[in-house]
Amino acid sequence: MSHAVSPLAPKSYPDMPAIDGVRMATAEAGIKYRNRTDVLLMVFDEPASVAGVFTRSRCPSAPVDFCRANLAAGTARAVVVNSGNANAFTGRKGREATALTAQSAAAAVGCATSEVFLASTGVIGEPLDATKFAGVLGDMNGRAAGDFWLDAARAIMTTDTYPKVATRTAEIGGVTVAINGIAKGAGMIAPDMATMLSFVVTDADIPAPVLQDLLARGVGPSFNAVTVDSDTSTSDTLLLFATGAARRRGQASVASTADAEAFATALNDLLRDLALQVVRDGEGARKMIAVTVTGAESDASAKRIALSIANSPLVKTAVAGEDANWGRVVMAVGKAGEPADRDRLKIWFGDVRVAVDGERDPSYSEDATSNVMKQQDIPVRVDLGLGQGAATVWTCDLTKEYVEINGDYRS
Amino acid sequence: MSHAVSPLAPKSYPDMPAIDGVRMATAEAGIKYRNRTDVLLMVFDEPASVAGVFTRSRCPSAPVDFCRANLAAGTARAVVVNSGNANAFTGRKGREATALTAQSAAAAVGCATSEVFLASTGVIGEPLDATKFAGVLGDMNGRAAGDFWLDAARAIMTTDTYPKVATRTAEIGGVTVAINGIAKGAGMIAPDMATMLSFVVTDADIPAPVLQDLLARGVGPSFNAVTVDSDTSTSDTLLLFATGAARRRGQASVASTADAEAFATALNDLLRDLALQVVRDGEGARKMIAVTVTGAESDASAKRIALSIANSPLVKTAVAGEDANWGRVVMAVGKAGEPADRDRLKIWFGDVRVAVDGERDPSYSEDATSNVMKQQDIPVRVDLGLGQGAATVWTCDLTKEYVEINGDYRS
Repeated sequence: MSHAVSPLAPKSYPDMPAIDGVRMATAEAGIKYRNRTDVLLMVFDEPASVAGVFTRSRCPSAPVDFCRANLAAGTARAVVVNSGNANAFTGRKGREATALTAQSAAAAVGCATSEVFLASTGVIGEPLDATKFAGVLGDMNGRAAGDFWLDAARAIMTTDTYPKVATRTAEIGGVTVAINGIAKGAGMIAPDMATMLSFVVTDADIPAPVLQDLLARGVGPSFNAVTVDSDTSTSDTLLLFATGAARRRGQASVASTADAEAFATALNDLLRDLALQVVRDGEGARKMIAVTVTGAESDASAKRIALSIANSPLVKTAVAGEDANWGRVVMAVGKAGEPADRDRLKIWFGDVRVAVDGERDPSYSEDATSNVMKQQDIPVRVDLGLGQGAATVWTCDLTKEYVEINGDYRS
Repeated sequence: MSHAVSPLAPKSYPDMPAIDGVRMATAEAGIKYRNRTDVLLMVFDEPASVAGVFTRSRCPSAPVDFCRANLAAGTARAVVVNSGNANAFTGRKGREATALTAQSAAAAVGCATSEVFLASTGVIGEPLDATKFAGVLGDMNGRAAGDFWLDAARAIMTTDTYPKVATRTAEIGGVTVAINGIAKGAGMIAPDMATMLSFVVTDADIPAPVLQDLLARGVGPSFNAVTVDSDTSTSDTLLLFATGAARRRGQASVASTADAEAFATALNDLLRDLALQVVRDGEGARKMIAVTVTGAESDASAKRIALSIANSPLVKTAVAGEDANWGRVVMAVGKAGEPADRDRLKIWFGDVRVAVDGERDPSYSEDATSNVMKQQDIPVRVDLGLGQGAATVWTCDLTKEYVEINGDYRS
């Protein structure tokens, strides 16, 4: 199950500063893996504001249900994340496991279970033995430290081939605040593997409703604009916490989203950074594809067409084969069901226009296009010539290694 | 580009009887392939009724546009089918090519261009040199014969590893009529390869509007219930012709669909037979998967959920790996966006119930399930426990060979 680090991995990691108001520790609870950390505890010594977005699956995991219920109060004191078992499709036992984990965390940290947030990733349908957390959380709280982000990112990995971290700063009313984030995920889902989880913490003082609004706006062009295999996890979870520690440095609390424009820009940039790191670690990925659709009737229509292209197995296998097969892009535009006029379509690979006015571009150079396809990052652009709608989504190629990772592991 | 015959190919072919009123011939026009037939001419000496269904792509090929226009009159005298070039996304040149092909066929057969139907499969975006047909169609008409179905099926193959034929009989008012069909296709699309085309002919006397109604009803649980890779061709074409020759044996013309119940049953059975042959020749397929969803809120909802399962790369790779990974089935149910209650789900692989009431089935036997997964035909059933809606769709597994066929052919 061990795979070489993705060729698309970052060449270096940023220094991840401590964020005032949050401490972390990891441990080996032995949920599934041996000799590696598999549980992460985040502690907010003062109550933090919290916002969250979750999978749209109609069959969400028990921890997703648990987080949704606690989100209403908008306050967090502890987060417990485990890898190795998703606690999804575990019925009554799943609810018992989340309740027990929350009780253990609340006892360890000294808070209410309504202030605990949970996330699990790993096998679906296997009961999670939450008693294993009870023994380790108290100790973890004792040694939790602020300067621990890269280790935290490692503890939540499953089939990820590298840890995913990002950091930004922004000003709110003249006071500099920091934002740190970690993420894991390598397929949209895989029961033994790769749900997308992400945890972002800022020391800014932002009330929960504003934080939720900021997160909801930020997720569209970042985590909701990436796809590895079109499959959607039962456990996808993105939580954003604001510890409020910047209050002590004079930051006035933010009353509305409009007061946090610079923060929103930095947050969105960080979310996109993390989301692209997830795609670049897509199972079996050797190339990253940025699909941009312009000239659509609306932004929403552009995004649906971009996703149709990005999710097409034939487009993705063509990129894996370094084949500038723009006919498959036409196919994917056509099947999206969105307004499109075949005879106005223009298509580019990189800067090379390969199709125009519903035909192959007469000046199309096979050599120039081949050079684009040999790169690691492949920009594909489609202009529909209908309106002003635009969107970009990111995906990776579909390789034999994807099939191997997801199909051959029992053989 | 040559691949071994699919392990799921039929073990034998039926004897395909001649159908009164239709003659066929094939030729080597040299469109793309060398030393193999690549053009098929079907001739109806008396005008036949015709019905058709086509790709839902917003970027259809020139021949699809051409057929749609001619379908209104409901009468056919000739069909020209070529492989090697799809004449799709070819702009004005594409329309010129269909016009020229139709003129050549009309001259050869002695009919109006409005009585000609066309289909092309192969590369997208490459202009089709229709002058190559002009030289061969007259000769083909001269030698066209009735007893030619298997050769016809071979002439329209692209990446297909075996020809696809089926035959049925039915009674209309005490008179026996015959139905023959051929099909090609191995992916839902592939520009160099595998559009789905099918041509079905009966000697029954059925007026075009009734024929269209019969075809529209029949295509839902057959060709519209199969998927190889979720990609949709720009050229998918299914045409049904009724020569009316059975009139001479005393068949009274059919006034409405209600008068052709036995015929409809036989037609639907034949369409399903052909559609399943297409899936069994799916690119790289080693296993056939029948996904049945019951207990949905409606049949339409059941079909959307079944397609979500059948199109999931993670479900398809799991089957390739002979892994009874029902967690991925839960995932695919959840992402379909249709009404579903996690805690009522039941899932079977073959006769083995692996999940019940939102949990792993306590009596689930790994050995029994492994035996199911080793078969060539894998039935997957999901009961939602919500209502009476039901649907079955068919697909194949996703193997490294699929990626190889679609990604590696330039390397």
